[in-house]
Amino acid sequence: MTSEDIGPGTARPGGRTARVRSAVLRAAGDALAEHGLAGLDLADVARRAEVGKTTVYRRWGTPATLVADLLADMAEQSLPRTESGTLLGDLRANARLVARTLADPRQGALFKAVIAAATCDTRTAAALHRFYDIRVSEWEPCARQAVERGELPADTDTREVIRAVSAPLYYRLLTTGEPLDEATADRAAEAAAAAARAGAFRTARP
Amino acid sequence: MTSEDIGPGTARPGGRTARVRSAVLRAAGDALAEHGLAGLDLADVARRAEVGKTTVYRRWGTPATLVADLLADMAEQSLPRTESGTLLGDLRANARLVARTLADPRQGALFKAVIAAATCDTRTAAALHRFYDIRVSEWEPCARQAVERGELPADTDTREVIRAVSAPLYYRLLTTGEPLDEATADRAAEAAAAAARAGAFRTARP
Repeated sequence: MTSEDIGPGTARPGGRTARVRSAVLRAAGDALAEHGLAGLDLADVARRAEVGKTTVYRRWGTPATLVADLLADMAEQSLPRTESGTLLGDLRANARLVARTLADPRQGALFKAVIAAATCDTRTAAALHRFYDIRVSEWEPCARQAVERGELPADTDTREVIRAVSAPLYYRLLTTGEPLDEATADRAAEAAAAAARAGAFRTARP
Repeated sequence: MTSEDIGPGTARPGGRTARVRSAVLRAAGDALAEHGLAGLDLADVARRAEVGKTTVYRRWGTPATLVADLLADMAEQSLPRTESGTLLGDLRANARLVARTLADPRQGALFKAVIAAATCDTRTAAALHRFYDIRVSEWEPCARQAVERGELPADTDTREVIRAVSAPLYYRLLTTGEPLDEATADRAAEAAAAAARAGAFRTARP
């Protein structure tokens, strides 16, 4: 099967190109989730995506390029943040979303694989950093609004508050075999909120 | 060069075996730090360690087994904790040690590589979990003594306090390109201490 089999030509510019990319990135995500980084093979991805091998090799070339493009796509599909009206409510929504994502068998395995891939390749690392930058930017207004409401000190590094929510969840995923349940998520949110209130994320600390 | 070249036979039981293991694990650590997980090759490790290939293949068999043994060895070499007399002082000492380790070019690359290896292999993951269990057990008395001094609530999950110190440092290492400096370490310690004081790590939370 070749890339021509994906669908008929279309008048919409980039239509087939976009469909091929979508099929290939989904297949790459599946392969990474199932076999981890070591199992990512462009020919296998082409087969899974029902796209011509030549297309995949020409467009992505290496597994690292494919993982970088997958991360760019994941960043675009970032879910909008929740607004609950309180810092703790917002951070809890964020923590539960992250914990649910990492606890999901496909998503959890995929995140482990892309983090592992980033340790092996600087372009993948740059794509991973951009992905988390975008995620943090999406949720940072939760902390900024808490500053505006007077819940947090004025000179709080609001991006660090959001990172503090995710950090214990990723640390748990990568360094323990323990489950990422809702109680774990809520504790991560409470710890980040308490630390922020106490001024631990102030930019000008004493 | 074969394993026989490592040194003469010795009356001390396990002496040569221990020297071979030590040379092989150091070479494995060097290879991982230089080339990451993808570059770990038993023949290359044997060459670097000046040990016979057959010895390495017979004793470790696969890169995953070698990484698991390296992690067991790293756990044994864990540094003793600092006792400063206050929770914040102890957690700061822990955070600075972790940050210095991860900021060190060889050690940082090695930790990234073993975390990546653990995502690909369940035995390596088990060895990594044991490694962090031992590290947490070494530092957990800092939080336990803070409970005894009345600095923290009685039902504090003291292991979680220690993990909270490391989590933002590892998260920064893996998801950003930002440096792990002393200010980052101190902020991690302050955030963990503030969250613990506020009761975020109590086992029976409201």
